[in-house]
Amino acid sequence: MKIGKVVGTVVSTINSEVFDARRLLLCDLLDADQEPTGDYLICVDAVDAGAGETVLILDEGNSARQIVGWETAPIRAVVVGIVDEVHLPS
Amino acid sequence: MKIGKVVGTVVSTINSEVFDARRLLLCDLLDADQEPTGDYLICVDAVDAGAGETVLILDEGNSARQIVGWETAPIRAVVVGIVDEVHLPS
Amino acid sequence: MKIGKVVGTVVSTINSEVFDARRLLLCDLLDADQEPTGDYLICVDAVDAGAGETVLILDEGNSARQIVGWETAPIRAVVVGIVDEVHLPS
Amino acid sequence: MKIGKVVGTVVSTINSEVFDARRLLLCDLLDADQEPTGDYLICVDAVDAGAGETVLILDEGNSARQIVGWETAPIRAVVVGIVDEVHLPS
Amino acid sequence: MKIGKVVGTVVSTINSEVFDARRLLLCDLLDADQEPTGDYLICVDAVDAGAGETVLILDEGNSARQIVGWETAPIRAVVVGIVDEVHLPS
Repeated sequence: MKIGKVVGTVVSTINSEVFDARRLLLCDLLDADQEPTGDYLICVDAVDAGAGETVLILDEGNSARQIVGWETAPIRAVVVGIVDEVHLPS
Repeated sequence: MKIGKVVGTVVSTINSEVFDARRLLLCDLLDADQEPTGDYLICVDAVDAGAGETVLILDEGNSARQIVGWETAPIRAVVVGIVDEVHLPS
Repeated sequence: MKIGKVVGTVVSTINSEVFDARRLLLCDLLDADQEPTGDYLICVDAVDAGAGETVLILDEGNSARQIVGWETAPIRAVVVGIVDEVHLPS
Repeated sequence: MKIGKVVGTVVSTINSEVFDARRLLLCDLLDADQEPTGDYLICVDAVDAGAGETVLILDEGNSARQIVGWETAPIRAVVVGIVDEVHLPS
Repeated sequence: MKIGKVVGTVVSTINSEVFDARRLLLCDLLDADQEPTGDYLICVDAVDAGAGETVLILDEGNSARQIVGWETAPIRAVVVGIVDEVHLPS
């Protein structure tokens, strides 16, 4: 998984029911120090994450299908959790 | 998923029926600000996207096979939607 | 899929019958303007492509197994077509 | 697989039981000389690795599901071993 | 597939029988001219490759599982052949 930050939402009509009730989040990918990398992913929201929140992104089709509970969903990247803390022992 | 921009089409004879009635789109990959990254993907068109349109690209085999409704299709990247709006709250 | 250019062949003994009658092509990956990117893939040839030809590369295991018609083949990247034309409307 | 170094842990509530009893490790990816690359992965811990330890990271969904013994787990990257030695003959 | 060069071995205890009788090879990834790229993969050895040998690396889980003949093996990258020759017609 990677750490991301929700920076926006994408509106698009996709011909698959799995997207009907789910938002698409534009997530900046963060580095290990939680700074933006310049890369991003469009992720299906599974945790009702809001703009500015730091999240965990799981980018694998079969995992994403388990998260949304839909075996045939055309889906790959999904926001699976809001990051409460990154603990870096010194 | 990633955001792309349709910049052309590719003509190639591929020995698989899934490609017979479908166009191959040359899509520039865009960054989070919708500027070209210099990278691209050749995608199967599932939404009748035209040149210059901003699209959503889903790059996973099993997802692509669901989108075209063909369980054994040799296919990975597919244009699944036309982007109506990218909303970036300030 | 990506666009590649066949620049050579690789000779290697691989302990799997799927490789017995198939050539391994060294393909430079091209950018959207069909210039070399510096990256490459070793691909199984499915279309009898020759040196110097511009080809379509599909890089996914399940797709490659469908193309060669062998459900358990250990194979991922495959040349699936020769590119006849890339049409870039101005 | 890649070589990584455990630099921290991530605390996040994820709505899947597979994460209930497992830690998420922030692992810096190391290069072949075991120096940091600047890239990282958030991995599920399968070996009780501690901060500062050099580990082997396996980044594939089906492999990860086998490691945790859970066929439907939404999981991709997993720490599968602690590296005892990297032997580089001169 | 990619071309690699075996530069070392990795010693690690992994809790899966598939690794019991197999070596883990540290392979530098080579570019199309067979020069090091700076990147590497830790691969399971399927051909008894020695240090300094140029090899073919197949990096896909289902392929790797076929190569080792173990349907549930947690494994992704595997050395599948020793490169006898790279033929680059001028």
